[in-house]
Amino acid sequence: MKLTVVKIGGNVIDNSNACAAFLQAFAQLEGPKILVHGGGKIATLTAAQLGIETQMVEGRRLTDRPMLDVVTMVYGGLVNKNLVAQLQANGCNAIGLTGADGGIIRSVKRPVKTIDYGFVGDIEEVNAGQIDALLQIGLVPVIAPLSYSIEGLLLNTNADTIASATAVAMAQSHEVSLVYCFEKKGVLSDPEDDEAVISNINPDSYADYRERGIINQGMIPKLDNAFAALQAGVKCVVICHADDLLAAAEGKAGTVLELF
Amino acid sequence: MKLTVVKIGGNVIDNSNACAAFLQAFAQLEGPKILVHGGGKIATLTAAQLGIETQMVEGRRLTDRPMLDVVTMVYGGLVNKNLVAQLQANGCNAIGLTGADGGIIRSVKRPVKTIDYGFVGDIEEVNAGQIDALLQIGLVPVIAPLSYSIEGLLLNTNADTIASATAVAMAQSHEVSLVYCFEKKGVLSDPEDDEAVISNINPDSYADYRERGIINQGMIPKLDNAFAALQAGVKCVVICHADDLLAAAEGKAGTVLELF
Repeated sequence: MKLTVVKIGGNVIDNSNACAAFLQAFAQLEGPKILVHGGGKIATLTAAQLGIETQMVEGRRLTDRPMLDVVTMVYGGLVNKNLVAQLQANGCNAIGLTGADGGIIRSVKRPVKTIDYGFVGDIEEVNAGQIDALLQIGLVPVIAPLSYSIEGLLLNTNADTIASATAVAMAQSHEVSLVYCFEKKGVLSDPEDDEAVISNINPDSYADYRERGIINQGMIPKLDNAFAALQAGVKCVVICHADDLLAAAEGKAGTVLELF
Repeated sequence: MKLTVVKIGGNVIDNSNACAAFLQAFAQLEGPKILVHGGGKIATLTAAQLGIETQMVEGRRLTDRPMLDVVTMVYGGLVNKNLVAQLQANGCNAIGLTGADGGIIRSVKRPVKTIDYGFVGDIEEVNAGQIDALLQIGLVPVIAPLSYSIEGLLLNTNADTIASATAVAMAQSHEVSLVYCFEKKGVLSDPEDDEAVISNINPDSYADYRERGIINQGMIPKLDNAFAALQAGVKCVVICHADDLLAAAEGKAGTVLELF
């Protein structure tokens, strides 16, 4: 059975008009589907208003206890529930989830090596059977970037990772397309030219683009993640602009990643 | 089929030890079950930290836009998701929901008469079929005091009302027990004596107690709500201390409300 897993980034969530247009398109997407969302700047802003300092190391948020409460409030509450309410208004039977809900995404608190990331979870298991049961009763899971540990802790978890891990787990029983929506039209061959979209990439051309320094450094973790998902059984990965969701889901926009 | 709907008040949620003990008991409760929770003081505290003033009129919170965001964060996120994660750690397959999730509780924004309550919802419909579908796949709904409107607004909604409306809707297809857990051992015949629990109340004795001024004013909306639920088909209503959940669910603690 076909299934589309869509990841939407924080920058779309931060823009209410762009977000409303995206949700309208997502609601129109046919067949079973899952939305995974990032957090946006609201967590950082809310933390600042609460007098909690945001600490970043190598582009990643350190999650101490007060920051964990903020991301639980903002990602699991404010962002997630507003997405759900808007999807319902668009006729899409959304259900907002963190990894704790239905035990769908279990993780372990990241071990401290050189950096203590705090309450950050590394995914151990995605409960595909539970997610499938929700899909089968006609629900559309909307997943916040939070997982949980068997001790009952909520843990901050990267949304791209949640999207790819969910897509991989569901690929055991579904023909899964994974669509990453962000603020660019795809992977660009020239970072200064928003129209210079590379329409297809495979591992060989990816290696070549990297070697020639053509691909933006910030895209590399996303692409590594995406190729790993393909290797683990996901049928198709597309990286596209949030405005192009419906075209991209048909392979008509964005950058399509392929194994061969 | 039997179903237990349990409402837990904010004061238990505010006390982490009492809450942990309650959740352990709730996890042990046999058969299909639903937990409805209040908010506690965390919303008021968080609002104050964010510089948002809490305005109360006749014991009810006025919910302007900033306060709606706070209750969405705190009730729908922080409180709800921590309850779910702790229930999961207790082996209970909880799923945290607002009324928007699965479209389970649709409401209308309360019309402005003498007071503008703001983003407060009066329940129009509980989608019992959707809740039943979640129960049938083995999930335990944990419902935050938020509903949604067809326009896609989240709306602040009293938790006691959500509990009774849910119990009534589910009573069409289930034998429903509704258990209100709070900080007293039941309805007291003497507000100064915590042991003076009235073990049974029916509409006649309720009228009599009210006339004699025996029942605390604060209990009256809760009791009116409870009798209305019984009249609408709920099989059994018990009001008890959160510590006594398991005994109360068997009719061995708290105040049992009866129609005759």
